Amino acid sequence: MDFLKPESVYNLANIREDLIRMEDTIIFNLIERSDFPTMPSIYDNESSEIKIPNFDGSFLDWIFQQQEIIESQVRRYQSPDQYPFYPKIIKESFLPTIKYPKVLANYFREININDEIKKIYITKMIPRVAKYDGEQGENYGSAATMDISVLQSLSRRIHFGMFVAEAKFQADRELYTKLIKNNDIDGIEKNITNSAVEEKILKRLIQKAKAYGTDPTADAQTASKVHPEAVVGIYKDWVIPLTKKVEVEYLLRRLEDKEF
Amino acid sequence: MDFLKPESVYNLANIREDLIRMEDTIIFNLIERSDFPTMPSIYDNESSEIKIPNFDGSFLDWIFQQQEIIESQVRRYQSPDQYPFYPKIIKESFLPTIKYPKVLANYFREININDEIKKIYITKMIPRVAKYDGEQGENYGSAATMDISVLQSLSRRIHFGMFVAEAKFQADRELYTKLIKNNDIDGIEKNITNSAVEEKILKRLIQKAKAYGTDPTADAQTASKVHPEAVVGIYKDWVIPLTKKVEVEYLLRRLEDKEF
Repeated sequence: MDFLKPESVYNLANIREDLIRMEDTIIFNLIERSDFPTMPSIYDNESSEIKIPNFDGSFLDWIFQQQEIIESQVRRYQSPDQYPFYPKIIKESFLPTIKYPKVLANYFREININDEIKKIYITKMIPRVAKYDGEQGENYGSAATMDISVLQSLSRRIHFGMFVAEAKFQADRELYTKLIKNNDIDGIEKNITNSAVEEKILKRLIQKAKAYGTDPTADAQTASKVHPEAVVGIYKDWVIPLTKKVEVEYLLRRLEDKEF
Repeated sequence: MDFLKPESVYNLANIREDLIRMEDTIIFNLIERSDFPTMPSIYDNESSEIKIPNFDGSFLDWIFQQQEIIESQVRRYQSPDQYPFYPKIIKESFLPTIKYPKVLANYFREININDEIKKIYITKMIPRVAKYDGEQGENYGSAATMDISVLQSLSRRIHFGMFVAEAKFQADRELYTKLIKNNDIDGIEKNITNSAVEEKILKRLIQKAKAYGTDPTADAQTASKVHPEAVVGIYKDWVIPLTKKVEVEYLLRRLEDKEF
């Protein structure tokens, strides 16, 4: 899938291939984060352990904002699959703007559920993957850096829902136009849901988490570095539902862009 | 291994366990980098594709320096296993300094071969792992970000040689003192080399690169995302020799620190 070639973007097989590749990235990142404890101080705006001068936010927010400032300057958020967590602080790039052809409806930049992703990640996912519940002051920076990698890979996966939604809309304009006009959210959800594909994803994730999380040369009984069930749970409980949420949000507004 | 507990640092079994865990990180990072082409413009100080205002260096240098400025502020380079690539530009942290106990001889911060690692990575390793030889302008930032992850994981692995060297010195002070006094580099190299362990590393890497680089649910004939031979070659040709170089550099000066 190549954003400079719109025809490649509306092909569900291409989208699925990219989504499958993203599973690897998400699992690698979860494995790396699982090497550290939960470290609640990193996420606490009022932490007594970590004081950041002249900054209103958590330790993670501080590093993440600095990183988005850098990455925005190298065009990260020009790409239609990248959505900032701190859209108010990002900067212009010093590089020439990339002229991406139109691949999504004109309001697509208004759909950004990163705040929700971050909240769920911190409160729900970290406790499932972290090595143990506790602090490790000398690794605050390392853990937060891995958090950013996990969050960025989750955000990309979830906002990819817009490409799925657009491909589905284009494949059956009549059906979706009717559902959207009737504000039929249940009908939209039903039509974008493919339970067989979802089952396949969850089965694949168990296998991948085991394969990537275990040293293949170690004793057979070695535990995976990340619990395969935790990875599956993260997809089942949040990644898949949040992707659908993005798809529905995108589709509900789809008739706004009459030219497309 | 815990740098706050020096006795855990001089234990070769602990060091090896950490080195084995680092293999995973290095392979994950190489797999992610292999998703992009070589992109020579990223590394070219005089690139006609990428112009950075008021900056003398490559595109990778620019992002990497920005990142080291951030990471230095969250204490990355206080940790005895972290060495900056741009030591002149790093900043003080706003967090309290971590009081690491002494775990290496007092000159250890003077040993830093990151320039050499970066040069070899760009000229030798990228051509071995990249998807194909060419540019992909819209992914300059993504590829450079992965480069930083690879380089940081390689640097940590290679500079870990100092812990190996210190553990070996402490295990046989008499032998190493004699070799160092005679400036017997060959003798030092011979004594720090364990060919059986090296063979084991290379065999493990083949298995790991296959396991982590292949979707376990895909058809049996699917190729690994990174060539397992490339990973083995990177270790054999550079990671292991450069780690030994660090060990020898460290040991040759070891008698300077008479108190330790």
